[in-house]
Amino acid sequence: MSEILSLWNETPAKKAILNYVNAITNPDNADFVPEAERIAIMDNDGTMWVEKPAYIQIFFAIERLKQLAEADPELLNQPGFKAAVTGDMAYFFKLDPHTGGSVKELMKIIFDSHAGMSQDNFMLIAKEFLKTARHPRFGVLFKDLTYKPMVELVRYLGNNGFKVFLASGGGMSFMRTVSEEIYNIPRERVIGSNIAFETRLTDEGPVVFRKLGLVDPIDDGPGKPVNIELHIGRKPILAAGNSDGDLHMLWLAQKSGHRSLSLLLRHDDAKREYAYDEGSEKTLQMAEERGWVVISMKDDWKTVF
Amino acid sequence: MSEILSLWNETPAKKAILNYVNAITNPDNADFVPEAERIAIMDNDGTMWVEKPAYIQIFFAIERLKQLAEADPELLNQPGFKAAVTGDMAYFFKLDPHTGGSVKELMKIIFDSHAGMSQDNFMLIAKEFLKTARHPRFGVLFKDLTYKPMVELVRYLGNNGFKVFLASGGGMSFMRTVSEEIYNIPRERVIGSNIAFETRLTDEGPVVFRKLGLVDPIDDGPGKPVNIELHIGRKPILAAGNSDGDLHMLWLAQKSGHRSLSLLLRHDDAKREYAYDEGSEKTLQMAEERGWVVISMKDDWKTVF
Repeated sequence: MSEILSLWNETPAKKAILNYVNAITNPDNADFVPEAERIAIMDNDGTMWVEKPAYIQIFFAIERLKQLAEADPELLNQPGFKAAVTGDMAYFFKLDPHTGGSVKELMKIIFDSHAGMSQDNFMLIAKEFLKTARHPRFGVLFKDLTYKPMVELVRYLGNNGFKVFLASGGGMSFMRTVSEEIYNIPRERVIGSNIAFETRLTDEGPVVFRKLGLVDPIDDGPGKPVNIELHIGRKPILAAGNSDGDLHMLWLAQKSGHRSLSLLLRHDDAKREYAYDEGSEKTLQMAEERGWVVISMKDDWKTVF
Repeated sequence: MSEILSLWNETPAKKAILNYVNAITNPDNADFVPEAERIAIMDNDGTMWVEKPAYIQIFFAIERLKQLAEADPELLNQPGFKAAVTGDMAYFFKLDPHTGGSVKELMKIIFDSHAGMSQDNFMLIAKEFLKTARHPRFGVLFKDLTYKPMVELVRYLGNNGFKVFLASGGGMSFMRTVSEEIYNIPRERVIGSNIAFETRLTDEGPVVFRKLGLVDPIDDGPGKPVNIELHIGRKPILAAGNSDGDLHMLWLAQKSGHRSLSLLLRHDDAKREYAYDEGSEKTLQMAEERGWVVISMKDDWKTVF
């Protein structure tokens, strides 16, 4: 058993995961689940990679806001542009849903910053950003700040016939530029919040552009089951999240008609990562009531990054 | 070569498909495409199964309109309900995009008929409908009226490392109830037009409901590249369609950056199926200009159903 989930300590959380996967993949077990229905869904920010001091996509949006304001100084009259140019990070941090901000408001700023460009161009610059941008505290590339035990879990589930999807509250396309490289999750299995798209038929053929405006609902809270229905058409049997934005999704797994596993990652490791329960209170309480497995970053993981 | 695409005659269309797949799957070929980028997209109505005398989902909607009118006779003041109850099929046939109707108008009638119910309930009754409903001309189950050479093509592509997606102008969820059974295409690879969803948090957990109203854009014409971006995040290298609603999608394949194959199925077989070019004129012309392969149902297929 030592090589399976090798980055996890031998604690009840690991045991619960192994027991679950062993049961539902064993054709002789009453809880066996056919492969087509082995759907796993993982939240992204704070579940698969770091979300502090702010969603990584915020740093990408700030770059863009700066560029736009340089080209058109009139924009500095708008608080978001001004904060980006003056380096007023507190402006962006206070939009964080974990400190009372609204994911929707946050995503609007993020999406507006790249509205009007072609999707191909967006994907290109997002990928470029993630190639070089570094985390302010850890000093390494953002894309290296994935939680390695979770990446290991994704691979383990894939090896056991699961289709593993990402359900990001952040932007779908932003994550698709790196999901294959950092998580081994193919693009088409990345779900997230969205800007609206439109096709323009040019002389060189159809081109997809990013329109101004969020697609409703954003992929957070009650929006997660909606987007799971849209992108998968089946309820997950395994779900992992870390905040109240994942509550609906974690509960949804218990409605799949199969034995399910809902995992709630708790950030309790100020030394190796961060410690915060703000924005996760309801879900931590629900975990207790509904038998969800709480993963302690501090106790259950041998390593974080 | 005889067992590959065994339902296809030895004509240029079959040869073009085999040549293409052999080239892009051969690592020694300059046109080799890595598996992650082998995306194929197939239109549904008229490309994978019969769409005459009307989209199959229309017959499903009519059943529902009848039930609703029975419960509330006031509804008979609305033309759609009246046509359903009186069996005025001409009312529905004239909405067909191949005879000058609007896919959007058609989908609105279809979707409105099932608004307000839970998605689970919708999936259940759609599946039930397709278990028993029969085609008015051929007398067999609708779901048996798939084009067997196309189903064979889907399997052949899958065996060659393609991820094959369905892009239906009709309803996404309706097709997901049978896509695995009739096409061997998993639910999460079925794209289509959509009613809006919403999550309601009940005492028993989250439930997804169908809301009144189409999601914009519907999955037709310029809406197809939009939904391909949303559900896949990559351009297809192979696309198959049969009408002007597929024009953007067929052209999109040529923008993938790889050697591509665009297939246009022509309905020219009044004896075994139907013969009609109405609603496909632009795309037939474009096929000639842009080197798309036109499949003749009559000449290229040994069998249809």
